[in-house]
Order: sequence, then C-alpha cells, then structure tokens
Amino acid sequence: MDPNAKKQVLRSFTYGLYAITVNDGDQPHGMVANWVTQAAFEPPMVVVAMERESRTLALAEQTQVFGVNVLASGQRELAGQLGRSSAKRPDKMVGIRTHPGPETAVALLDEALGWLECRVVGTLPAGDHVLVLGVVVEAGVEREGQPLTLAETGFRYSG
Amino acid sequence: MDPNAKKQVLRSFTYGLYAITVNDGDQPHGMVANWVTQAAFEPPMVVVAMERESRTLALAEQTQVFGVNVLASGQRELAGQLGRSSAKRPDKMVGIRTHPGPETAVALLDEALGWLECRVVGTLPAGDHVLVLGVVVEAGVEREGQPLTLAETGFRYSG
Repeated sequence: MDPNAKKQVLRSFTYGLYAITVNDGDQPHGMVANWVTQAAFEPPMVVVAMERESRTLALAEQTQVFGVNVLASGQRELAGQLGRSSAKRPDKMVGIRTHPGPETAVALLDEALGWLECRVVGTLPAGDHVLVLGVVVEAGVEREGQPLTLAETGFRYSG
Repeated sequence: MDPNAKKQVLRSFTYGLYAITVNDGDQPHGMVANWVTQAAFEPPMVVVAMERESRTLALAEQTQVFGVNVLASGQRELAGQLGRSSAKRPDKMVGIRTHPGPETAVALLDEALGWLECRVVGTLPAGDHVLVLGVVVEAGVEREGQPLTLAETGFRYSG
C-alpha cells in the first residue's frame, strides 16, 4: 500500500466536530469526535468510532447511553478542551456546562447547537477503535448557527 | 421524541460526498454516499452505511470488496448521477469512466480526487441501513483539489 496516498485520501474526507458525552456516575464525561455519521433513517441511528482505550467508550458500554452534541462554528477552543486526554487531564470537563437529557439523563452540552440522546444498540470492533451504534431516543435544538467543521479548526484526526 | 428537533440536529451534521464502487461481474457498479467515515488508524479502516436494499450493498457483501472514491468540488452532477436508483436507472453508470484497482480489481472512478480499495471485515445491521466496515488495502491520489461536500451540492441525505 502507498502510505502517503492512504494518508492524503483519508485526510480529504469531510468532517464535523461533535462532543460525545457520557455519564460517569453523577459526573459528566466526554470527548470530541469527528468520526461520526448518521447510520439509519428508520429508526434514526448514529454511529461513532471511539478509541478502544477511551474512558468515553468504557462509560458508553457500561451505561449503554451516550449523547451526540453538535459543536458550533467558533467553538474551536471548546473542541480542543474536549479533545484532551482524560488520563492526563482528569479535570478537562471543568467549566463545561451540561444538563441531563430528558429521556436518558445523559449529560448534554448547554453550548451545543443541538444534541441527540442515544441508546447503544450495537458495537463492532474496528482496529484501534470501536464502532458504537446508537438509536436516537430524544433530540433538542439549543440555538441556530453553523456547525463546526474539522476544516475550520485546522485539527487533524484522520489519515 | 421531538421529530423536528431530531431532523434539524441530524441535518446539521457535516458530510463529504463519495462514490462507493463495486464490481458486478466484469461491470462497474456504484452509488453516492455521505454516511462515510474513517473508523480506525491501525489498521486503516473506513465504514459506510449502505441502504439495506441497495445493489451496492449486495455486491459488496458478495465480492467482499468496495472502493471509496472522494468526489471533487464541482462534481455535483456526477454525484447526482451516482445517486440514482439502479432499479429505475440500470444504465446509471454509463459514461462514468473507471479503472480496476491494483490490489482488488474493484472499479475505481477516473475522475475522483482519490480512492481507497477496501476489503470488507465486518458488517453491522443498522435499521434500514447496514454498516459495512472495510480495511484499506490500497490507496491512490488522482489529482489535487477540494472535496465535494453535501453542503455544496444542496442535496439532503440525513434527518
């Protein structure tokens, strides 16, 4: 395989940026993710590729619930904060305001454009990640605005 | 669930547009897809949500191989052609130039920015779609350019 072509083609994929939220007991936890897509219309489903060793994956598997929060254009700093390693920065959620979802009580970001509450309906191991498939059980719009894209941030998580 | 909020949040997701290609005997077949994301770094993997009834899914499952071709900005018409129903338009691939991939012989689009040859390593049913997980076995860059986004086309495939 041509490793440079592989990298260049994978980096040409287009992504938004999302906060994936979970509950850690009565505390919110989360991470930023761009490997996120809708997966079905009926019932409405989304899939998120989560790092195999991530605390967010462990908590999603334990609680069987996660939130997908659409970040807004301009929230590069928030995305960067959520993207920190929770092993190195256990306080990374400090200052991020959340509220419990009406259907599952999963923590949801006050500052997102909108959010989806999802119940885990399947997982599929994918190399150093795990695909987590969730059915959408509730949704909310927080405000109007443009979504944050990976291109806007200049971050890289592909290749 | 609030159906309008569900629709609005899902429609705020950010997507690129990709031609998913497969072999139908010695003929190329394909479709356009936006529910596509990288799924792992090591080994490099991608996942595509394909309609459960689609011919592309049937052929990917039969041949265990598919191509992901990154469409270029300006290729809205090509995306529209690939998005037609092959049941209603069996000739929809006519005029789309392809070449066989070096590793798997899967048909790849001459006009894409770049492509990935993928071998199917897993599937996960997802409502009216099926997640098809592929490991990237070869990649190629056809030319430089900006990727086509769902936003650019004005098409809708989410919500």
